Amino acid sequence: MRTYTELCPSPRTIMTPGPVEVDPRVLRALSYPILGQFDPEFTAYMNDTMEMLRSVFQTKNRWAFPIDGTSRSGLEAVLTGLIEPGDKVLVPIFGRFGHLLAEIAERCGAEVATLHCEWGTVFDQEEIVSAIRREKPELVALVHGETSTGRVQPLDRIGPACRESGALLVVDAVATIGGIPVLTDEWCLDAVIGGTQKCLSVPSGMAPITFNERAERKILSRKRIERGIRPPGYEEPEGLGARIQSNYLDLAQLMDYWSPVRLNHHTEMTSMLYGLREGLRIVLQEGLASRFARHRLNEAALMAGLAAMGLELYGDPGCKMAVVTCVTIPDGVDGEAVRSMLLDAFGIEIASSFGPLKGKIWRIGTMGYSCSRKNVLHLLGAFEAALVRHGAQIEVGRALQAALDVYEG
Amino acid sequence: MRTYTELCPSPRTIMTPGPVEVDPRVLRALSYPILGQFDPEFTAYMNDTMEMLRSVFQTKNRWAFPIDGTSRSGLEAVLTGLIEPGDKVLVPIFGRFGHLLAEIAERCGAEVATLHCEWGTVFDQEEIVSAIRREKPELVALVHGETSTGRVQPLDRIGPACRESGALLVVDAVATIGGIPVLTDEWCLDAVIGGTQKCLSVPSGMAPITFNERAERKILSRKRIERGIRPPGYEEPEGLGARIQSNYLDLAQLMDYWSPVRLNHHTEMTSMLYGLREGLRIVLQEGLASRFARHRLNEAALMAGLAAMGLELYGDPGCKMAVVTCVTIPDGVDGEAVRSMLLDAFGIEIASSFGPLKGKIWRIGTMGYSCSRKNVLHLLGAFEAALVRHGAQIEVGRALQAALDVYEG
Repeated sequence: MRTYTELCPSPRTIMTPGPVEVDPRVLRALSYPILGQFDPEFTAYMNDTMEMLRSVFQTKNRWAFPIDGTSRSGLEAVLTGLIEPGDKVLVPIFGRFGHLLAEIAERCGAEVATLHCEWGTVFDQEEIVSAIRREKPELVALVHGETSTGRVQPLDRIGPACRESGALLVVDAVATIGGIPVLTDEWCLDAVIGGTQKCLSVPSGMAPITFNERAERKILSRKRIERGIRPPGYEEPEGLGARIQSNYLDLAQLMDYWSPVRLNHHTEMTSMLYGLREGLRIVLQEGLASRFARHRLNEAALMAGLAAMGLELYGDPGCKMAVVTCVTIPDGVDGEAVRSMLLDAFGIEIASSFGPLKGKIWRIGTMGYSCSRKNVLHLLGAFEAALVRHGAQIEVGRALQAALDVYEG
Repeated sequence: MRTYTELCPSPRTIMTPGPVEVDPRVLRALSYPILGQFDPEFTAYMNDTMEMLRSVFQTKNRWAFPIDGTSRSGLEAVLTGLIEPGDKVLVPIFGRFGHLLAEIAERCGAEVATLHCEWGTVFDQEEIVSAIRREKPELVALVHGETSTGRVQPLDRIGPACRESGALLVVDAVATIGGIPVLTDEWCLDAVIGGTQKCLSVPSGMAPITFNERAERKILSRKRIERGIRPPGYEEPEGLGARIQSNYLDLAQLMDYWSPVRLNHHTEMTSMLYGLREGLRIVLQEGLASRFARHRLNEAALMAGLAAMGLELYGDPGCKMAVVTCVTIPDGVDGEAVRSMLLDAFGIEIASSFGPLKGKIWRIGTMGYSCSRKNVLHLLGAFEAALVRHGAQIEVGRALQAALDVYEG
């Protein structure tokens, strides 16, 4: 029989828009022996995690917990819990992940109306507000930070418009949570989905979510207790809404699991929960304000370095996301060959993009633990060398000086 | 702001039917720095994992990979991929997890027919075969090892009957994979779902599955490429089956992710994949036959010890599952108080059960890394002491001797 080698991943500087490098404290937490899922020590760790998530989401919501799956499992849990078949859902799309929201909403049986704006830009909020008044959707779903284009959508005026028209507002903050402000309560967001593997610097595998009482009411109107663990004599209440189509992602059942009821559902991912808890501790120890400032500083140094090389940034600078920087691939340069050289020779990973942007831009992430002076400087030096090696006409010897100026300034 | 303590889980001897103790080699694997999801080193680890899963499932199937979620995400991925709304699904139920299969099938829009037998027993296979011929379902779903009752359902004659009638056979082997034989090809199982947190001794968080070409055909008849990553000019084929209702658990898209196409879907759970790969290496290094023999030996010692105390085992001994032993709680003994004492004083966790068995039985798991002489002996000594402390009328001083006799015999 074939033998399989010892696990031995090469060291990497990961400067993609996720997954990014994991804080060593989180890696250590992953390696601790497990506890049973209903061990009081473990449920105390679950409760800590809920509390810390409230701080990170900047909310007073009771409900804040991770879904046990990658980020899109969180998107689907929220949408499948809040959308009943036939509901009208409005999805403003400004990149790949807007399409994903529309696709998931369709699979929930929604009648989906989309708005589109040119990739590389975002919506004027008034345009979305008008569409809400015109379409009168039951739910509005949109992306906060769109990693496919590196843009961030302002949200503060959309929530109030949803309240006014009775719509629920669901926001995909997978790429932004822990890196730039996500003001759940102040912006009147009814449900928010975060990601672990980006600005929180925890491995992919959980999707932190939060939702308020408006969303809770909708979910509870559809609540059914699982067969096989119903108490004797249990009768299903009358007048329930449409059954939630997923068992695994059923928020009504997950609320019973994440509350003192502790009604059995799945088996909580012990090790990932350890990792998320530690990742959140690190975020709160750094402090949200300091963390956001660190992300802005490293973005500034990176942009200064890229500009000094003479490279062109992609997209509208007025809505650039601080944690992703998109670079237009210069004419005549093979973008994938540059990426391969960065990985093979320098151990640095950057990303390409999707759909209409495939082959057109590189995407550089400055997220979480990967968002450091060391990494930005290592990348700029390597990028310059790789570009020269691939025939790009760039200014040499200036990028690192420009970035150092930012750090020293 | 509140500060949160350092992670510091107490050492535990986990003798439940899952989650169980994790092999330290797996814990170490979890702590390695991550790689990007499309890093060639990482995709090589993904391919290793697929190969090793084929060995563990004892199959030549091309498709064998983990779903990124806990065990029930694997059940739902398979059922939601194979069941179209209106399909007739037969679910023979002999415990809690049969109810779960029926519930998930209903949520997929199936017309579900159930068979029932008394909890603590399993079905005569002929009864299921007759029902297949009578009901002519599109799909049959059943549990192999039912942890709620500690029973194992023989399967070898059900697969051929499904082939004969054109039904697909889906088997929940969450509790049995890696602990007792699961002969995917020999038994003609079309799709099998395993669990990580039981006999594989990897933390909860992934659900290994395998399926054959019969299942693949059904899935591909429903395949749609995700919006936002469709190639230019892509047109959806005509005559597709009903859309798969989950995006996250869409097997058609996951096949493109787990094949050389590597079409982007979710972000693979790097650390969990490291852990699963290491867990599978350990299983194959021990060898399936030796591993199954180890599980039988520790079961025999445990049962000898329990019998020597005069405790009564629950359920039909003819279909007892080797990796779970159910003990009837003696009259007048508070089962939960005994469990609490085991946890608090001895650091040992055993389980209660669900629904009609709640308060009636204890369930003791001997699974994977937890299935060891050290653990069985520690448990028997502690259990005897705790039972005495709670007023149970048992024979004292004999359990450990009986177990040692088995180990030395």
